[in-house]
Amino acid sequence: MANYLALDREQLEQELQAQRAVFEGYVKQGLKLDMSRGKPAKDQLELSVDMLKITDLMGDSGIDARNYGNLAGMPEARRFFGDMLGAKPEEVFVGGNSSLNMMFCVIDLAYRVGLADSPAAWGSGAKPKFLCPAPGYDRHFRITEYFGFDLLTVPMLPTGPDMDVVEKLVQDETVKGIWCVPIYSNPDGYTYSDETVKRLAAMKTAAPDFSILWDNAYGVHHLTDTPDHVLNILDECCKAGNEDRALMFCSLSKVTFPGAAVAAMAASKKNIDFILEHMFPMTISFDKVNQMRHVKFLKDMDGLAAHMKKHRTLLEPKFRMVQDTLERDLAECGEIAHWTKPNGGYFISVYTYPGCAKRTVELCREAGVVLTGAGATYPYGIDPDDSNIRIAPTFPPIGELELASRLLCVCIRIATLEKLLQRQ
Amino acid sequence: MANYLALDREQLEQELQAQRAVFEGYVKQGLKLDMSRGKPAKDQLELSVDMLKITDLMGDSGIDARNYGNLAGMPEARRFFGDMLGAKPEEVFVGGNSSLNMMFCVIDLAYRVGLADSPAAWGSGAKPKFLCPAPGYDRHFRITEYFGFDLLTVPMLPTGPDMDVVEKLVQDETVKGIWCVPIYSNPDGYTYSDETVKRLAAMKTAAPDFSILWDNAYGVHHLTDTPDHVLNILDECCKAGNEDRALMFCSLSKVTFPGAAVAAMAASKKNIDFILEHMFPMTISFDKVNQMRHVKFLKDMDGLAAHMKKHRTLLEPKFRMVQDTLERDLAECGEIAHWTKPNGGYFISVYTYPGCAKRTVELCREAGVVLTGAGATYPYGIDPDDSNIRIAPTFPPIGELELASRLLCVCIRIATLEKLLQRQ
Repeated sequence: MANYLALDREQLEQELQAQRAVFEGYVKQGLKLDMSRGKPAKDQLELSVDMLKITDLMGDSGIDARNYGNLAGMPEARRFFGDMLGAKPEEVFVGGNSSLNMMFCVIDLAYRVGLADSPAAWGSGAKPKFLCPAPGYDRHFRITEYFGFDLLTVPMLPTGPDMDVVEKLVQDETVKGIWCVPIYSNPDGYTYSDETVKRLAAMKTAAPDFSILWDNAYGVHHLTDTPDHVLNILDECCKAGNEDRALMFCSLSKVTFPGAAVAAMAASKKNIDFILEHMFPMTISFDKVNQMRHVKFLKDMDGLAAHMKKHRTLLEPKFRMVQDTLERDLAECGEIAHWTKPNGGYFISVYTYPGCAKRTVELCREAGVVLTGAGATYPYGIDPDDSNIRIAPTFPPIGELELASRLLCVCIRIATLEKLLQRQ
Repeated sequence: MANYLALDREQLEQELQAQRAVFEGYVKQGLKLDMSRGKPAKDQLELSVDMLKITDLMGDSGIDARNYGNLAGMPEARRFFGDMLGAKPEEVFVGGNSSLNMMFCVIDLAYRVGLADSPAAWGSGAKPKFLCPAPGYDRHFRITEYFGFDLLTVPMLPTGPDMDVVEKLVQDETVKGIWCVPIYSNPDGYTYSDETVKRLAAMKTAAPDFSILWDNAYGVHHLTDTPDHVLNILDECCKAGNEDRALMFCSLSKVTFPGAAVAAMAASKKNIDFILEHMFPMTISFDKVNQMRHVKFLKDMDGLAAHMKKHRTLLEPKFRMVQDTLERDLAECGEIAHWTKPNGGYFISVYTYPGCAKRTVELCREAGVVLTGAGATYPYGIDPDDSNIRIAPTFPPIGELELASRLLCVCIRIATLEKLLQRQ
């Protein structure tokens, strides 16, 4: 029961046997838990049921949300999301239910046609490349992979993507952009430092239409009394004379109902106008009924913050539970794992001893606990260290979460012991 | 006041002066009416307000519509739309708020990658072509125009597209598909005959992945006691051994709330699976809350039919008003215009004397009545005869509609008189 890294072969084998016995105990419980995706729990969904009772859908300017029209969104929704993203209403386009789909559409458009500043379509010349701070969000990486971009990994630091690496890579004009989750990043829960944001905004890029896809997914999803803040990338890009560089996205999926909420984007008016022009062939208009329902329910930034406090009340104990369990159950093992302690967001990143993440996830699955696949948070699904595990503590009830966290620790121990034995 | 076509120059000039005086009377009224788009009126929207009160969103199979997941749609929604389109649930994919957007995504996919049966992406070889029965729906044509297809006009007959022309054109393997509104076509309100459907399903096409984009937009939008029926294109394609040829679309936009309803598509399971596989990078899931709300409100095909009867009660008098006015106010002028008398749908097609449509629309606009731009119903917006005007009688209140219809007749008279004078 000492530091695993200091044990000899016999001690490792003894400890492995002991931990396997504990593991078998979990297997017998026949668990069936899912900690794989950032999915709100049922009690969080209940926080928004009153929104479904809102039936007054007339806009202030006399627009009936129930009929066709207003492709850019209800004026009150453009104001609301403008406040949320730190942009003027005319810099905002409010869409349908999915910010991921908006990002897909933007990449699709850039690939086919280009963006407002593009000398040519991204897909028209040499194979384009995209920067992927990793670990990061698998569904971001997948969009650019799907369109055939080369994905370039940038190490993710507690201050954001490693800017020394980024600034070097953007000297290549086939590097067209970067995926960013600037606050409470997926999966680490890191928030970009002011310096990172300023460097992203100001750096010289070989591609004149280099674009920052800024997914502000967790901008209001605070979990502590010491919330993080991130600089406004649009403002910083303007200051640096690169006003068309940033495309910001957010959604209310983890505010009200996942997949049944409202998504929006903000960018320079030039980019928004360009994108709207290309949205015209795509659809008549988005679901303005749902836009109005959300704005009338959440009202303004104060209303939104008050609503998010209710989420925090439900989520904070879950995050603390996972962290306390990791602390308690792994402390005695020495430096075999470390994990992030985010002030918000939906995830905790656990870093195992190198080469142990896949095996840990596999063991958890054997015992009935589904985690995000190891490696999923890296481009092409390959974690070079096989170390990162993304923990999504939000969905299971807290009792199940405790069980799952304890099992996770046992599995980390087993995977580490097996690896140490292999290396001996 | 006789047959315009039999008048001499002096009589034409006299009559023109008389009609201009009538026209000036309308101008003085300062009308501000819109008969340009197929938009339901406010009283139609009120028919569905009870849907907004539905808050029970649990699916029969225990799926909570309020959370992520189920990309293909709620099982009950797949059943509902399957019944509506005449397809099995597994042949149905229920999406977001816009069937037009689904069609856009399918063309985008086909252009980039191809469809399930495609030997290659449609955009990868020679410039692809698409068949456009005209007059037809401008937003269909625009999608294929946007992707750079050559648009080939096929004359629209009361039995559907001229199949002799279609069968010839599909011998060209760069002809990749055809836009169809098979029942109560936009703008004529024509319904495809059984023979047309069977020939579309069975014809030999040079392109192995020739696709029929079957927009069943008005399948339940009957306006009379003698509704039209159209054969099921999926069934007919199956019988002919071309089971992957047809892609059917529909939406509830003109059943409940335009732009805030639910759209769906049906095709062979092979095509649906292929499309879903390619939807995966595009989004997490569609708005299942809205799917459940619609299914719980409309319940089944009987519930849907009962609901559509309420729409008919509101719409039938409007269609009759336009037709009665045209009949009454143009009868004495001889054969200077004819128009369609559809059993359903959202439009009436007026055919003016050749070369008079643009001028008629211009005159209406001068007097404050906005019609769909003349030519809009043809590929590239060019009506070779400058004859077709699409009338959308649904949106204005009936009093305004009467005024607008009477004005339309005056404008048709003036445009015809001007044209006849030019030709003298």
